[in-house]
Amino acid sequence: MKAVNVGICGLGTVGSGTFNVLARNATEINARAGHDIKVSHVGARRDNPACDLSGITVLRDVLAVCEVPEVDIIVETIGGCDIAKEVVLKAISNGKHVVTANKALIALHGNEIFAAAEAKGVAVYYEAAVAGGVPIIKAVREGLAANKIQWLAGIINGTGNFILTEMRDKGRAFDDVLAEAQELGYAEADPTFDVEGIDACHKLVILASLAFGIPLQFEKAYTEGISNIAQEDVIYAEELGYRIKHLGIAKRVEAGVELRVHPTLIPEKRLIANVDGVMNAVLVNADAVGSTLYYGAGAGSEPTASSVIADIVDVARLMDVEKEQRVPALAFHPGHLDVDDVLPIEEIETAYYMRLSAKDEPGVMSSITQILSDNGVSIEALIQKPVAADQDYAVVIILTNVVKEKAFNTALASIESLAAVAGSVNRIRVESLG
Amino acid sequence: MKAVNVGICGLGTVGSGTFNVLARNATEINARAGHDIKVSHVGARRDNPACDLSGITVLRDVLAVCEVPEVDIIVETIGGCDIAKEVVLKAISNGKHVVTANKALIALHGNEIFAAAEAKGVAVYYEAAVAGGVPIIKAVREGLAANKIQWLAGIINGTGNFILTEMRDKGRAFDDVLAEAQELGYAEADPTFDVEGIDACHKLVILASLAFGIPLQFEKAYTEGISNIAQEDVIYAEELGYRIKHLGIAKRVEAGVELRVHPTLIPEKRLIANVDGVMNAVLVNADAVGSTLYYGAGAGSEPTASSVIADIVDVARLMDVEKEQRVPALAFHPGHLDVDDVLPIEEIETAYYMRLSAKDEPGVMSSITQILSDNGVSIEALIQKPVAADQDYAVVIILTNVVKEKAFNTALASIESLAAVAGSVNRIRVESLG
Repeated sequence: MKAVNVGICGLGTVGSGTFNVLARNATEINARAGHDIKVSHVGARRDNPACDLSGITVLRDVLAVCEVPEVDIIVETIGGCDIAKEVVLKAISNGKHVVTANKALIALHGNEIFAAAEAKGVAVYYEAAVAGGVPIIKAVREGLAANKIQWLAGIINGTGNFILTEMRDKGRAFDDVLAEAQELGYAEADPTFDVEGIDACHKLVILASLAFGIPLQFEKAYTEGISNIAQEDVIYAEELGYRIKHLGIAKRVEAGVELRVHPTLIPEKRLIANVDGVMNAVLVNADAVGSTLYYGAGAGSEPTASSVIADIVDVARLMDVEKEQRVPALAFHPGHLDVDDVLPIEEIETAYYMRLSAKDEPGVMSSITQILSDNGVSIEALIQKPVAADQDYAVVIILTNVVKEKAFNTALASIESLAAVAGSVNRIRVESLG
Repeated sequence: MKAVNVGICGLGTVGSGTFNVLARNATEINARAGHDIKVSHVGARRDNPACDLSGITVLRDVLAVCEVPEVDIIVETIGGCDIAKEVVLKAISNGKHVVTANKALIALHGNEIFAAAEAKGVAVYYEAAVAGGVPIIKAVREGLAANKIQWLAGIINGTGNFILTEMRDKGRAFDDVLAEAQELGYAEADPTFDVEGIDACHKLVILASLAFGIPLQFEKAYTEGISNIAQEDVIYAEELGYRIKHLGIAKRVEAGVELRVHPTLIPEKRLIANVDGVMNAVLVNADAVGSTLYYGAGAGSEPTASSVIADIVDVARLMDVEKEQRVPALAFHPGHLDVDDVLPIEEIETAYYMRLSAKDEPGVMSSITQILSDNGVSIEALIQKPVAADQDYAVVIILTNVVKEKAFNTALASIESLAAVAGSVNRIRVESLG
């Protein structure tokens, strides 16, 4: 078997997992790859006690690993967009293939990186960048190659899903669960990336490019977090037969492409509605195959390493072929990338859940429903909760039909301006995913 | 773009779907493949009105398609093991690559076919043979290449799952639903292949080989159908927090490999327990990634075509490389195939659900529980239903711990021989899938 030398840059959670799984499962991996894959070099500022580095050349300067002539594949597991980007571009310019787990890097700089790789004729793969160990990139890029992909919807941030699951299953409040997630190490000390949907948006943008054959366009995607979801919304959603999930949604419609991350009510009967805890899942709808779903661990050392190594095996097999014979980085061969417009959020079409406090007096419901009707918003379901003895306001829950967001926003503003409506209306988008 | 000529042999449900999706999505497919894939020849005894065959050379002798020099890839969508096998072997001996949707052919003759393909240096791919449009073979073979796969469990026959789902959701009897499935075209006039688990077993055997790196061994697998599942078992299972699914299970244990298809109680909280109707899903447990699940349409013209075409795209890219550079047919390169023993069903270990009718008199429960205990079977849960006024027998439901099937069978025989126990005990295996 031909030897393939791997240089791992970054020996944190993912890098050490990759190192250890490569060593532990070498027999199986090499029998599958048909190559003798071994880590020859590691670039890390310090050793990781989880890894036995005997026999490995360890360099403290990660960039130096990209200069080692005998290294064939650079694994970038540093994270972030600074040194990681330097490493990846240096590796490419030195004619090395690259495997990375870095979603931010691909989402923000992928277009530049893939162009450089194309020019040099090397491969850049990044299965671990989306949904951790779930081979979703391979599925979309290769498994569904026959299809026009119409939309996809993913639970692609485990922290957010853990929080929403705890809120539903245990009736806990958002802040309380977030604090626990931080303690458990699911959420960073600064939880913004997770709970505000930025991490999910990185992944969504990558999936959308693979699905639709469009360039990566992170800056045009819409992102809304879950910090405004109240415990009562979770309960009312359930009463209506829905669950609230933080979804990344990419949809191809006539006017362009929708790219959006936001909390979403989905029917509880859908399989993806039952994906709980830190698990990830992506539902893909395509013209020939219909809906398929891919589920598994979205993070963690070894699940992520599983995807990194799958990429290494793919690259190892095809190091010496023409670049046209490899699976293209963004699923479509360059030059075939479409340039569909990403729609502003006002132009998307979806249904809505609304929760509002309305004064318990005659004519209020009639005003609200009239405003909705004037803006072309039909009501699919309405629940008015009895007014408690000591309160003047009733809680009203409305599910609307599918309508353009602009029209809905106009209606929302008018409803909020009613004297009989207290405070702002809480609205959550609703998708049937049928 | 280089042209790739495809010859489709068999223009039934899958062949016509393949033909039509290739034509409809040619732009997307070619942009992904980097090749101009076109159907140049069709072999079919008669035309299919669903396909516009203008411009295509149609041959009435399917074997003749394998002799056409300009055909690069033969798609076998004839089905069965007679002519289909001839076509596949003829294509291989003529140096053509093969894509097939034929699970029986691969399960029963795959070892011979792959050896012939290896000797000739051509590819034989068969994604459509398992779980229709779900890219499960690619996931197991490539996406999980880093892992030691420990077990997998699949709902891999849509007809069986449709029947069990209707029995649960609508309280219908097995025979009644089967008749409807036949009317709807889900089940064949002779439903044996579906309800007795033979079709599922073909698929399970293929998945097990891919997962564990062992030769295909259909003859050693255990198969049990769903025709003995009574409506009341579905109800009692639900009462205990379980659902009954017809699973194909492959498990690697110390003593060898378990290969078995049978009705199975699984906890209702598991995602796979919520896979309903004709849908398929496969749950795979592996050492690095943990559990991943793959879900989608397991049959139908275009879902199956989706997988056939994914294989065509894979082959088209790599027609000219060395055979060592392709993904091996059974995931592991030949020579690395393991020869783990397939265990006889008496040697497997699992938990059991038992339903029996016991005379409502003192000492009966004590006899039953004593027999279980004597054979090393512990009781995890027990429900005794109150005896109806007009009946002498009570229904007793027992869930056991995990035990060797041989020991359980001994206990079962003793219990059935008790004078106070009427008729035979209905037993269903239980898997936690945790």
